Amino acid sequence: MKIRHAVVLLSGGLDSTTVLAIAQAQGFACNCLSFQYGQRQAIELERARAIARKAGVARHLVVRVDLDAIGGSALTADIEVPKDRPFHEMEQEIPVTYVPGRNILFLAHALSWAEVLGAADIFLGINAVDYSGYPDCRPEFLRAFEEMANLGTKAGTTGTAFRFHAPLIHLSKKEIILKGMALGVDYSQTHSCYDPVKGRACGRCDACRLRLQGFAEAGLTDPAPYAQR
Amino acid sequence: MKIRHAVVLLSGGLDSTTVLAIAQAQGFACNCLSFQYGQRQAIELERARAIARKAGVARHLVVRVDLDAIGGSALTADIEVPKDRPFHEMEQEIPVTYVPGRNILFLAHALSWAEVLGAADIFLGINAVDYSGYPDCRPEFLRAFEEMANLGTKAGTTGTAFRFHAPLIHLSKKEIILKGMALGVDYSQTHSCYDPVKGRACGRCDACRLRLQGFAEAGLTDPAPYAQR
Repeated sequence: MKIRHAVVLLSGGLDSTTVLAIAQAQGFACNCLSFQYGQRQAIELERARAIARKAGVARHLVVRVDLDAIGGSALTADIEVPKDRPFHEMEQEIPVTYVPGRNILFLAHALSWAEVLGAADIFLGINAVDYSGYPDCRPEFLRAFEEMANLGTKAGTTGTAFRFHAPLIHLSKKEIILKGMALGVDYSQTHSCYDPVKGRACGRCDACRLRLQGFAEAGLTDPAPYAQR
Repeated sequence: MKIRHAVVLLSGGLDSTTVLAIAQAQGFACNCLSFQYGQRQAIELERARAIARKAGVARHLVVRVDLDAIGGSALTADIEVPKDRPFHEMEQEIPVTYVPGRNILFLAHALSWAEVLGAADIFLGINAVDYSGYPDCRPEFLRAFEEMANLGTKAGTTGTAFRFHAPLIHLSKKEIILKGMALGVDYSQTHSCYDPVKGRACGRCDACRLRLQGFAEAGLTDPAPYAQR
């Protein structure tokens, strides 16, 4: 049987690590793609490398994206990361941690690499439940990206159509964690925090709070190290 | 009157330089975006810088795109650039100079920067006549990209919709040159060649041949330096 290759966007966070396990469980040889984009912390990439190595992936490529030249968000510029926000507030607006066009840029790189590799399947960990404020995490966006990809590439117009898989898009954090645990994911390695303190998750930013709540709802303890929780 | 800002993709070639003149003639303050992506030649970027300076643009940003890490084309890898091809052959197939996902990556960066700048208009010099073999130069691709952009960004979903302008898309090279000449474009500065010889255009690759034919059809002489023509 021919090996099917997939490109998997891997940030080193809880969601993308779960997606990698899902893609591997579906039988794909996974080509993981991570980005260096002027993030405040290098810890994400270290974790992504460790996770990819441990999972025995086909390839792991780290690509530099020049978002710091473009500017404009809390994750790359000097804007304060919100702390201790109520959950209803996270859901209502597009947060300051929104990076203009970030997922579009990441997906564009994934598409380009998939075309070079001859891979038709691209997996990503976007989620429309917890991150409903981010327009680039919504299903209608992903469908539009897929359509654009199949019109704007050689592979898409002449060969097998690209398929974008977002297996977590409709899952709650609790459901994501339970799915990952069933697939044997080691969440102690994963990093989600927007603003870590000496290599430990802050426990107070939106990402930490959603993650801790997910583990609590699943009746589990998050094995990752926290500065405060 | 409020100044309207636009992002203009500027490669330093004939087409994008004409597009810059068109956007300026329409009253836009132009923010030019060029890419360093492992091209064989640095000459493109030098010309882009000179053209932007001479045109008195609002900003000129050169962004690094890691296409050489991704690999896979004559413009970035070690594949031979075709020479002296008959025109009918250029039209029939997707050439080896096709870079997987390149325009998609460029447009994604333009979109991200436009969102940061608060610009709604993005100009690019794609052409569906001479480059009919490139899927990412077709009108249906650009419409799909625009739709995706307006679903996947904060600005697109909450404010003014992004508009992608490809004013050359249906023009022949002759028509592009005549339009540029009417707007006072100095084509001696522009660089189109895929495989220059000591800073001069080779005169034999697809880009050179289409350009030289365009000038000939317009009854003009290309003022750019050629190694051979």
